[in-house]
Amino acid sequence: MTKRLKFWGWGHEGDGLDARETNALLETFAEGYGIRPTDDGAFPTLDAISLAAPRLTPPSSLAKICTSDKFERMLHAFGQSQPDSIRIYEGDFAHAPDIVAYPESEPDIAALFDWCGEAGAALIPFGGGSSVVGGVTTDVGSGFAGTVTVDMKRMNKVLEIDEVSRAARIQGGARGPELEAQLKPRGLTLRHFPQSFEHSTLGGWVATRSGGHFATLYTHIDDLVESVTMVTPAGEISSRRLPGSGAGPSPDRFMFGSEGALGIITEAWMRLQGRPTFKATAGFRFADFFDAARAVRAVAQAGLFPANVRIVDGVELKVNGAGDGSFTLMVVSFESADHPVEAWMARAEECCLDHGGTVDVAWRDNPDANLQGAVGVWRAAFIRMPYNREQLTPRGIISDTFETSITWDRFEEFYHAIRDATATAVREATGQEGVVSCRFSHAYPDGPAPYFAFHGQGEKGALLEQWQAIKDAVSAAVIREGGTITHHHAVGRDHQKWYERQRPALFGDVLAAGKKRLDPKGILNPGVILC
Amino acid sequence: MTKRLKFWGWGHEGDGLDARETNALLETFAEGYGIRPTDDGAFPTLDAISLAAPRLTPPSSLAKICTSDKFERMLHAFGQSQPDSIRIYEGDFAHAPDIVAYPESEPDIAALFDWCGEAGAALIPFGGGSSVVGGVTTDVGSGFAGTVTVDMKRMNKVLEIDEVSRAARIQGGARGPELEAQLKPRGLTLRHFPQSFEHSTLGGWVATRSGGHFATLYTHIDDLVESVTMVTPAGEISSRRLPGSGAGPSPDRFMFGSEGALGIITEAWMRLQGRPTFKATAGFRFADFFDAARAVRAVAQAGLFPANVRIVDGVELKVNGAGDGSFTLMVVSFESADHPVEAWMARAEECCLDHGGTVDVAWRDNPDANLQGAVGVWRAAFIRMPYNREQLTPRGIISDTFETSITWDRFEEFYHAIRDATATAVREATGQEGVVSCRFSHAYPDGPAPYFAFHGQGEKGALLEQWQAIKDAVSAAVIREGGTITHHHAVGRDHQKWYERQRPALFGDVLAAGKKRLDPKGILNPGVILC
Repeated sequence: MTKRLKFWGWGHEGDGLDARETNALLETFAEGYGIRPTDDGAFPTLDAISLAAPRLTPPSSLAKICTSDKFERMLHAFGQSQPDSIRIYEGDFAHAPDIVAYPESEPDIAALFDWCGEAGAALIPFGGGSSVVGGVTTDVGSGFAGTVTVDMKRMNKVLEIDEVSRAARIQGGARGPELEAQLKPRGLTLRHFPQSFEHSTLGGWVATRSGGHFATLYTHIDDLVESVTMVTPAGEISSRRLPGSGAGPSPDRFMFGSEGALGIITEAWMRLQGRPTFKATAGFRFADFFDAARAVRAVAQAGLFPANVRIVDGVELKVNGAGDGSFTLMVVSFESADHPVEAWMARAEECCLDHGGTVDVAWRDNPDANLQGAVGVWRAAFIRMPYNREQLTPRGIISDTFETSITWDRFEEFYHAIRDATATAVREATGQEGVVSCRFSHAYPDGPAPYFAFHGQGEKGALLEQWQAIKDAVSAAVIREGGTITHHHAVGRDHQKWYERQRPALFGDVLAAGKKRLDPKGILNPGVILC
Repeated sequence: MTKRLKFWGWGHEGDGLDARETNALLETFAEGYGIRPTDDGAFPTLDAISLAAPRLTPPSSLAKICTSDKFERMLHAFGQSQPDSIRIYEGDFAHAPDIVAYPESEPDIAALFDWCGEAGAALIPFGGGSSVVGGVTTDVGSGFAGTVTVDMKRMNKVLEIDEVSRAARIQGGARGPELEAQLKPRGLTLRHFPQSFEHSTLGGWVATRSGGHFATLYTHIDDLVESVTMVTPAGEISSRRLPGSGAGPSPDRFMFGSEGALGIITEAWMRLQGRPTFKATAGFRFADFFDAARAVRAVAQAGLFPANVRIVDGVELKVNGAGDGSFTLMVVSFESADHPVEAWMARAEECCLDHGGTVDVAWRDNPDANLQGAVGVWRAAFIRMPYNREQLTPRGIISDTFETSITWDRFEEFYHAIRDATATAVREATGQEGVVSCRFSHAYPDGPAPYFAFHGQGEKGALLEQWQAIKDAVSAAVIREGGTITHHHAVGRDHQKWYERQRPALFGDVLAAGKKRLDPKGILNPGVILC
């Protein structure tokens, strides 16, 4: 029997931090930063919440793929954001979808569009539900007769594999582990590993311009797509499968990042790789965060294209038990299915040593480097991080992240401005000092993608307001200082007003004109990308 | 004194093939393939052509940047396509622009848009005029009160250089050599070298999704742009300068490939590189074209990212004096500003030898490899190729190229279908066997970009009709067999009807809705991308 997903947090019921891990996390916050639980950590229960009767009844032709089951409606009411978590623990489910649908084909989706259009219902596409920006939260205001969430989980097949070109045609609802399991027997892999990998889908990745495992080069899912099919209320858009093209503006790139507001990604031809057999990982310590950043720049500009090149500052290491706060960690990895990577790694190591790095974990003849030293401890914590929130929110601790990108010339000034704005916002919203940390999630030749985390002492009953005040302040700072409101978390409902400031106004008009053509009744994911 | 550009062909007056080169070219066609001159090779003269008086008079505020000089009107009547060349030699200048404008700023462009909108005139953006697909040919039909070509040559500055991020803000009218000359003192380079490099512009490259020097990885200009500014009749679209972003559909990617139909690219922040100091080139011969193609696939899928990996078939080598027709040549090059490239080249060489290649030019300790053997001869011919046409057209010889891309799984079948369709079309259009050759201009892990050339015995007075019959047949074959109508030559007027078949219909509607917003009077480059 398969385990049920939690409606209140990350993963399946029964999975999560054990008591020892939870206590260690709480101790770190309490002893390191004076952030203490204000309440217990009990998970919410289904019985404690009552939902209004669904306002919609699907037509009989769609009844077999639709449900109004209470658990399903609650499971699909939220994603995985901090405000989602706060509202779940507050029992705020009044906006839960009336119906959850599980289409099995493109015609099912077209029929759902037709029904919702006629019924005046909003339709929320749902992949794995991992959105941390309110992208699947079914809060669409009062302008609709009801809400239908369309969960793509039944369209989860790898339909074709082309071993010669190394590509596969994959359905939009395939979760990371599902699609990798179907590719593995052929020796191939997509190697797109966002932190949400286990509970996110190919269609969701494409719709949100997901950023994955590769810290350089093939970072964004955008570059891994050969062609894509999107079903819209006006019909289907299916692009031609091509390795490269210069024929007019790219239709694919108009669909990437549309976040369910223009249609549903039902399948895509994806570029694959051979499974890597040559790997090397090294870790370096830097006394100075900016020296580490300069080492990242050197590696990124050297044209070596490491699979991984990340720095994690002393605060984030300390919060995760991987350091004492006195050093920044840099992790560099190369991998190849084709050739030994020594020449690549040797040059990257020179770049690190040239900028003042010292070896934390050595790479030569060390196949387990990724499990050792600060590298290994941080990696283990990274994998467990999505489980932290369900323990922190009910204890009144605010804990969230945001990510952006900036060119190298402006990075140091930008970093100070954002870190200061975040620290100030946490202090003003919570009345005491919080914690702000930074790592690089990705790095480009022309700039890094800094990823900030903040943690603060919240107050039960005021958590949502406190979080919103911090979010507003840091988002305003990111936009003011020239960053992007999101590098790979997507826009969703939470970033919409800042995205509208970032987006060129006339391009916003073009998007609106496109939506008018594709979704003339405006039923698709209202409030996301286009209001 | 600067030399004047030819109105009838490539480059400046006085530049081109000398008598020896011309004779060698004609001998190759005559003796190798029975394609013989039917006329002499005289260039057309200005005096032999008379133009109607211009139908438009610019307002006095624009007079200083506008001209109706006869030479300028003729120079801007055509690009560099085969049908352009045929029409030039036939004296077909009735459609020449009424006015040529040389804006010096964004406000100049906005004023030109306003004037043309009020006057009901079509406006044709013009970079270097190197379009081989009718992209700048001022043939806009009878629906306009006149035609204004907007030549961007005065907006040719590198405005800012950011050495830390390795990027520069460059105006759209900067030609290749101009922008490289401005970057060189800082040790930086764009390293985007399309064959048209000398007479094409940054804005033209971005507007047409140009393909450059790099045969793998950073092939298309798309990947080199950080941000872009486009002036449209409705106002300016200026994107935020970012190393990477996942915030909604990319505004930049909507502007790339818009080919002057949505606006004029006035400047862009471009990603640069250090000037390479480590280089290696090797040449390999293959008895079988498909073995060579498989070697390209092996190198492309190895993740080595060579700067160059090309194959040229026996026919193209023979036409260019670089082979006897018995072998296919493969050229592989690596370059780096950072590190020696031996490890990379050694593995690529293994891929070539594994697939039956033999060394034509060895790379070890051979800095002049790119000048040697078949590699060197073909390279020299490649640089001179744009000058061939002005010698062939007036002698009644049809000579043209087209390019596409296809995934590896379909490549061999595709190649046969396209080659056969081209040979049949040339034979049927001209009444005798012609010549068809193929090379790869670019290669991706999932497929190559095959580049075909065809040459045939034309008949004076019927050349345009003969060429169109061939073009229609090969374009139909490319679309039918699953290729793209263009990999890097762009759509222009010549590919428009095939592009409309390739483009998803609903995306065409989205583009049209976008154009309606940005260019409500429909004055910008009519007949290109959107009719």
